[in-house]
Amino acid sequence: MSASPAPLRIVIVGGVAAGASAAARARRLDESAAITLIERGPDVSFANCGLPYFIGGEIGDRAALAVQTPASLKQLLNLDVRTSTAVTAIDRAARQVTLQHVTDGATETLAYDKLILAPGAQPLRPPLPGIDDARLFSLRNLGDMDRIKAATTAAAHVTVIGAGFIGLEMAEQFRHAGKDVTLVELQPHVLPLLDPAMTRLMEDELRRHDIELVLGDGIASFADAADGRLACQLASGRTVTTDFAVLALGVRPDTALAAAAGLELGPRGHIKVDTFMRTSDPAIYAAGDAIEVEDFVSGDPCAVPLGGPANRQGRLAADHILRPVEAKPFAGVLGTAIVRVFDVSAGLTGWTEQRLQRAGRDYRAVTVNDNHHAAYYPGAKPLQLKLLWEPVNGRILGAQVTGLAGVDKRLDVLATAIMGGLTIDDLAQLELAYAPPFGSAKDIVNLAGFTAVNTRDGLVTPVDHIPDDPAIQVVDVRPPPLVAAHPLPRADAINIPFGQLRSRAGELDTTRLVVTVCALGKTSYFAARVLAQKGFDVRSLTGGIRAHFDPRTPAKPPAP
Amino acid sequence: MSASPAPLRIVIVGGVAAGASAAARARRLDESAAITLIERGPDVSFANCGLPYFIGGEIGDRAALAVQTPASLKQLLNLDVRTSTAVTAIDRAARQVTLQHVTDGATETLAYDKLILAPGAQPLRPPLPGIDDARLFSLRNLGDMDRIKAATTAAAHVTVIGAGFIGLEMAEQFRHAGKDVTLVELQPHVLPLLDPAMTRLMEDELRRHDIELVLGDGIASFADAADGRLACQLASGRTVTTDFAVLALGVRPDTALAAAAGLELGPRGHIKVDTFMRTSDPAIYAAGDAIEVEDFVSGDPCAVPLGGPANRQGRLAADHILRPVEAKPFAGVLGTAIVRVFDVSAGLTGWTEQRLQRAGRDYRAVTVNDNHHAAYYPGAKPLQLKLLWEPVNGRILGAQVTGLAGVDKRLDVLATAIMGGLTIDDLAQLELAYAPPFGSAKDIVNLAGFTAVNTRDGLVTPVDHIPDDPAIQVVDVRPPPLVAAHPLPRADAINIPFGQLRSRAGELDTTRLVVTVCALGKTSYFAARVLAQKGFDVRSLTGGIRAHFDPRTPAKPPAP
Repeated sequence: MSASPAPLRIVIVGGVAAGASAAARARRLDESAAITLIERGPDVSFANCGLPYFIGGEIGDRAALAVQTPASLKQLLNLDVRTSTAVTAIDRAARQVTLQHVTDGATETLAYDKLILAPGAQPLRPPLPGIDDARLFSLRNLGDMDRIKAATTAAAHVTVIGAGFIGLEMAEQFRHAGKDVTLVELQPHVLPLLDPAMTRLMEDELRRHDIELVLGDGIASFADAADGRLACQLASGRTVTTDFAVLALGVRPDTALAAAAGLELGPRGHIKVDTFMRTSDPAIYAAGDAIEVEDFVSGDPCAVPLGGPANRQGRLAADHILRPVEAKPFAGVLGTAIVRVFDVSAGLTGWTEQRLQRAGRDYRAVTVNDNHHAAYYPGAKPLQLKLLWEPVNGRILGAQVTGLAGVDKRLDVLATAIMGGLTIDDLAQLELAYAPPFGSAKDIVNLAGFTAVNTRDGLVTPVDHIPDDPAIQVVDVRPPPLVAAHPLPRADAINIPFGQLRSRAGELDTTRLVVTVCALGKTSYFAARVLAQKGFDVRSLTGGIRAHFDPRTPAKPPAP
Repeated sequence: MSASPAPLRIVIVGGVAAGASAAARARRLDESAAITLIERGPDVSFANCGLPYFIGGEIGDRAALAVQTPASLKQLLNLDVRTSTAVTAIDRAARQVTLQHVTDGATETLAYDKLILAPGAQPLRPPLPGIDDARLFSLRNLGDMDRIKAATTAAAHVTVIGAGFIGLEMAEQFRHAGKDVTLVELQPHVLPLLDPAMTRLMEDELRRHDIELVLGDGIASFADAADGRLACQLASGRTVTTDFAVLALGVRPDTALAAAAGLELGPRGHIKVDTFMRTSDPAIYAAGDAIEVEDFVSGDPCAVPLGGPANRQGRLAADHILRPVEAKPFAGVLGTAIVRVFDVSAGLTGWTEQRLQRAGRDYRAVTVNDNHHAAYYPGAKPLQLKLLWEPVNGRILGAQVTGLAGVDKRLDVLATAIMGGLTIDDLAQLELAYAPPFGSAKDIVNLAGFTAVNTRDGLVTPVDHIPDDPAIQVVDVRPPPLVAAHPLPRADAINIPFGQLRSRAGELDTTRLVVTVCALGKTSYFAARVLAQKGFDVRSLTGGIRAHFDPRTPAKPPAP
């Protein structure tokens, strides 16, 4: 036998999601490679998505979050793991990196054949007055988590700034730990990535659990309050006095090292990669929150800091290094995301209406409501789904789902449908698993397909709000008790329960536009069909008025 | 204006899933049509999938199952509903049907422009001695349900014959009602549609709940027992003495009327239809359990008596009658089905391995295990997934899932993937909704994709059992405590925990085939990669030994 070739030297910078996945895949593919995993922090391969749940106490065992240690990675994957070690420079010509030990400042160089950058992203800390106050936290790693947990123990009131996915998880967990919580969001609704109407249920849930919501107001500065606590001063002039605050304003890519090495970056500082995760230097790959990838829907560059794509990108980088022929290109990201806050979940996949509008893209939208499983089987919970599609070919562009159960399942079906290029006609035909504890013979995903096809084919014309025009006849087809419980804001709305519509249609003026309204958007469609065939020009309020009321407290206003 | 055309006369035979859906869709599309819905039984549009749950008491309100009444269908859909009315003949030339009132025997004729047949299917009652015993029940409608519920109240012991989906639901519900239950199945495993290894968890669950399982034994005859109860005599010679028995042996299409009218039928008596649900007579459509449709995977004719397809087929028949240009052809059926028995769920979509083998089709299979959500988040439950794909193009042919949570979600994702023509490479890239309460950064569906791709690309060669050949080296890479709790049936298995494999590989004979084994099939893959790169010819036991033990009772044998 000939002598073995020199082992391939793979150096990976960043030891959490993308970096750890790259290391594991590389080892499966090449037992002989010299794989070095370098992490600036003291921990590798920890469960970063689980951090809020340890702070709130839902996860009781801190060790459960430390998925691997340097020793276990040595034993299982034969990795050379260097924690508390920063990479301070990349010498691309010499193919080596400079390492600096965080503890003693000592430096050394390490040669690579292939370098994988997985530096992640840093929580945003806008340059506001008082931003360096010690009572302001961000959550990125186990050390942050420990500090926030210690502060929580001593606190009575906590403020979360930013009501995106992480902000909501943090707010829920502080409440779970028994703290008073204020949640501040610059946009007029929580979950700014979602369309406003799809976040109403979540807002109701936060209020039901006595989380104070401050919407449409931004943080302006931090200072000492008169009582010695922290004063969060908002743009409106309002001050929230609190024991400590957590910044959950999003992240920015941690790419100073890549920039200094002259790697090509995107407009917001993300590392540019091709579909195999190669940077502008073919010996250097990058993966995870620090990179820019292709958006699945538009093909445009985008950055989506999420755990699922990060893991797959890291795996793909290793795959392409070690078997470039077999590796499959990255398909792009959908931005599928979900959050649970107490009993309510909400999430999205693909594009939202506000994003489509901003991009000037043509689209159609419907909103449907149904139960998460057969209504006659005990425990059926309400579910709301908004579907967006491309008029020219019926392809699904995006979906948002919120409700009390089964939200994740519908998002996953719709994410799969988008990746498969399915159309609204296909959604109508999906054959999903049905037994009474799990779904309905016509699942809400089928219903969304039916409704979209009816819209496309002109059987119904949806509107997403009641136009503010007194010339329009608003016909409320709900039963009178429901109308009494939740009257429409239009005092001149005409209540004709659907069962009476055929006989009472003569009460309406055929020369005036009609908008039919019901609780969930289904009966209003039925009514629109009846009236259209009687010669009326009619619109149906898509999704009904469900988005405006918490379905569990039908007769009560939102808590103050 | 010209005079209105004569209203279209649509007659629908059968008023449950397909028939009721057809009527509703027809009315939305045509306010003026004369729609008559004829049902032999006393009830229309009832929730037939809910019947077992009323018998067992999980659904307490009988009225919840009667979704609609003739009066409500008149009010909501302006339907002419005729219950307790049989259609005894179709005069295709004259386009009229003969009706006979079940109560008084009176007959009349009714003309149609379009006829939709949705007669459903009858429970199989094989011509065995004693088959007409009054203590033998089948479950098709509310009347059957009421009779079984009354019998249940008086019974101490109930026997269910047939362990398919309905049989399992019935067995569970009788146990839920506090009865002793024996479940008899001709095949050697429950859920005969599934591959054997995928039903083991379900069998353990039945035994955990003290349901007596009699597998691999068929019913031969029924007689009076010595104590006056019912004696179910089995093919093995064994007798099960019981208070009453329910036959859950499957169904046959209720197509005597269609046959008498000369409509073309399939080999097992199902009505043949085209992709728009048209029978061999273009004025007659058919939908639901009585028809033969295209199998989505093979394109061959098949019959799948399930509620979801029935509803969509009925809707499509009406669509094609009233808007033949816009109606989209039926995509075919996947046979997606699921059942929950106490805490365990199991189901399938597309084809199984045993079906592929019977058809002589080429396929590959892997089985993977994982938790239904992140392991570090409390409440993670085990999940097992078997994936089958087509070697030539990587397309997914079918999947089976069983576990304690999240089974329905994965089946739905995989059903959507099959309908979208996705490949194993696509599964590896699916971007599913991830937050710790809902899933993992790499979901079990991704894991199945990874494993299939690794198999396709030759990185691992799976075996689905340990070959019975003493020349093979079985290497058990589990930690010693797990080995002690569940030793392999092979006494000569070599236990080398994975962490020691690199240093102890020298203990193995490079000239003999190695099969690596672990609990879940993941570490055995890691081990196979290590050994393959050290020059061994190696196979990995796909799915590990999980299929052989209930994961919740690791150290206990199955109940006797």
